[in-house]
Amino acid sequence: MSQALKSPNLISLAAGFTDNTKLPVAATRQLTEQILRQSQLGRSALQYGTAAGNDALREQTSARLARLDHSTGRSSRVPVDQMVITNGSQQFLYLLSEVLCDPGDFVIVEDPTYFVYLSIMQSHGVRARSVPIEPDGLSLDHLEQTLRSMTKTGDIKRLKYLYSVTYFQNPTGITTSAAKKKAVLDLLRRFESKAGHPLYYVEDAAYRELSFPGYEPPKSSLSLASHRDRIIYTGTFSKPFATGIRVGYGILPSSLHGPLMNVKGNHDFGTAHLLQVLLSAALESGEYEAQLLKVRKAYARKCRLMIRSIRQSFPDQVRFTEPQGGLCLWATLPGKINTGPKSAFFKASIKAGVLYVPGEFAFADDPGRRRPRTTMRLSFGSASREQIQQGIDRLAQTIHQRLGNG
Amino acid sequence: MSQALKSPNLISLAAGFTDNTKLPVAATRQLTEQILRQSQLGRSALQYGTAAGNDALREQTSARLARLDHSTGRSSRVPVDQMVITNGSQQFLYLLSEVLCDPGDFVIVEDPTYFVYLSIMQSHGVRARSVPIEPDGLSLDHLEQTLRSMTKTGDIKRLKYLYSVTYFQNPTGITTSAAKKKAVLDLLRRFESKAGHPLYYVEDAAYRELSFPGYEPPKSSLSLASHRDRIIYTGTFSKPFATGIRVGYGILPSSLHGPLMNVKGNHDFGTAHLLQVLLSAALESGEYEAQLLKVRKAYARKCRLMIRSIRQSFPDQVRFTEPQGGLCLWATLPGKINTGPKSAFFKASIKAGVLYVPGEFAFADDPGRRRPRTTMRLSFGSASREQIQQGIDRLAQTIHQRLGNG
Repeated sequence: MSQALKSPNLISLAAGFTDNTKLPVAATRQLTEQILRQSQLGRSALQYGTAAGNDALREQTSARLARLDHSTGRSSRVPVDQMVITNGSQQFLYLLSEVLCDPGDFVIVEDPTYFVYLSIMQSHGVRARSVPIEPDGLSLDHLEQTLRSMTKTGDIKRLKYLYSVTYFQNPTGITTSAAKKKAVLDLLRRFESKAGHPLYYVEDAAYRELSFPGYEPPKSSLSLASHRDRIIYTGTFSKPFATGIRVGYGILPSSLHGPLMNVKGNHDFGTAHLLQVLLSAALESGEYEAQLLKVRKAYARKCRLMIRSIRQSFPDQVRFTEPQGGLCLWATLPGKINTGPKSAFFKASIKAGVLYVPGEFAFADDPGRRRPRTTMRLSFGSASREQIQQGIDRLAQTIHQRLGNG
Repeated sequence: MSQALKSPNLISLAAGFTDNTKLPVAATRQLTEQILRQSQLGRSALQYGTAAGNDALREQTSARLARLDHSTGRSSRVPVDQMVITNGSQQFLYLLSEVLCDPGDFVIVEDPTYFVYLSIMQSHGVRARSVPIEPDGLSLDHLEQTLRSMTKTGDIKRLKYLYSVTYFQNPTGITTSAAKKKAVLDLLRRFESKAGHPLYYVEDAAYRELSFPGYEPPKSSLSLASHRDRIIYTGTFSKPFATGIRVGYGILPSSLHGPLMNVKGNHDFGTAHLLQVLLSAALESGEYEAQLLKVRKAYARKCRLMIRSIRQSFPDQVRFTEPQGGLCLWATLPGKINTGPKSAFFKASIKAGVLYVPGEFAFADDPGRRRPRTTMRLSFGSASREQIQQGIDRLAQTIHQRLGNG
């Protein structure tokens, strides 16, 4: 199997990489050239910044978020002193766990959720309660049930926040509606008296900007002014622009900003300033927007191709999501086909020359339900069109074989 | 006071910044241009790397370290699979604490030590035992005493490692001799049976490359082959080259490499690849070496100037170190002049227009001794020659006033 994994013929529909052929090589060259032609800006880019991040980039991010939410007027903007620039949104999630969670605490997550986040939780000894995700986001009934049951057991006293990947969720591709965000926040607020402390809503919007052309993504929780003091939001410029330039950001209530800055200072004193200045220039010049348009179109085409290929070759019993953006979709196999990393099906897929992410990685350890075993995440981000078609064909053959159709 | 701190006339001898006027702006422009002119290398630079870091950069780092230690032959080189590229050496120290320490554990540190490291320890609930530093490194007698006393109390069972900043230490400027490194490692090894587990030696060589021309720094602990399985070493390319390009590295025994990779993956999936490719190109092209020579000369001149100014204007009773490299020196004031951040002296200094780092920040919370209050760290890294002269003059006046010489 390890040999098969190294085979150059293996098609990976597993990698979370973005499209290598679409990277903004020329734009980055020109922007760097412009920055480093200016002696003062050049020096500033090559010197330490601050732990909170470059001022101009934070201003631009705040303005950009207001635009995405169609908020007008400076008063509705996120104050820059509630923002921190991080090494991707990933680092922000890590810092946040350190600031808000002690070992034994609880976080409510979507079922399934972003699997690296589960690993962060685990490394901090944080426990998960999972709430099923529906086509428009978390199931409110299940969430209320969970909050009630945690109230009964007293676990709610150790509940710190709810974590939701709201746009083209990794792994399912599902987008949470604006109405649901509000409903979740209302519900959390109702249970705060039971918790005895604030219950935050953490909106991970990492894929927000990767919406397919023609689709208008819902507003973010930041637009819910009355809940602003309970909202934590994170996004990234890396995935849309270039993953080799790791620059993300987080927004959080003032009371948490100072503690998070201390932890960020201990980690690295602040994200590499050169990368921040570079992103700021990309936003300013319009190169960021141009790149974004390019990749949104490219991912939309590749997603459509993957869905067409699935329709053509997968058995009808396979269910799958049809995302409006992002980098992946989610398939549920029929019957009892176990897709786990040690399963016969997984091994057969690799032997057939295709790799996927076993869905079970994305389900938290939650004693309240059995971990589903028949799902998989399929990425169309880094694979070429040929690889997508061929990879889906290979998977289809493996499924047919397991079903005895082969 | 907050007004005085914002005054443009305030001279900071406190900042740990490097010299703004010596940053490699043109070199970075050319290197980036070269990287991004090559389509394949350019794409690779803008895509995710691996959690452990760029292969070429790790090979170059390994070869470089062997050269600094005058080790010949590939067999003496650090294997690249024991190395990880990090966001400065700072992040490596953070990751290491997460991997090796639980709350309540002990680390032995120098007295004084790097104050941000103390903050990292504190944030992980790790306790310090401090051992005085002498002109050639840790006091061996005190270290042995400390290990004996920890054996008696049983605290040694929770001792994880000894942390030492070995070259031009921040804050004192002291360099540890090669003989002392070996003696410390021998001593730790002798007490391992009491601890019941390995006692690691963590060598923080962040300032190693910033030696002044003409001074030959001692070899690192990596040259002690018989102790290699107990040595953890960290260094950085950021301080010599450009602090805005945060790239450091850590080396550790194989058994710890996997666990540290997991934590690094959770933090950020790996240091921004563009920065790693950039540093690799700087090393390859000789631009790194050229930059290094430039800053070593510049810091040597500024350090000499600071010492000359101190000799001319400080009272004779002030003691101070004369480092052979790095970015700072250490002064101890006479009598009972408290230099702490709330002291009358600190306020008077700011009023006089000069800022230093109060030495007490660099002393661990150790119930075994009273925290010294009369020391200060003075940096010559970012200040200009004029600022150094004037800053020292202002400090001198403040000292004379406190001593009643004014």
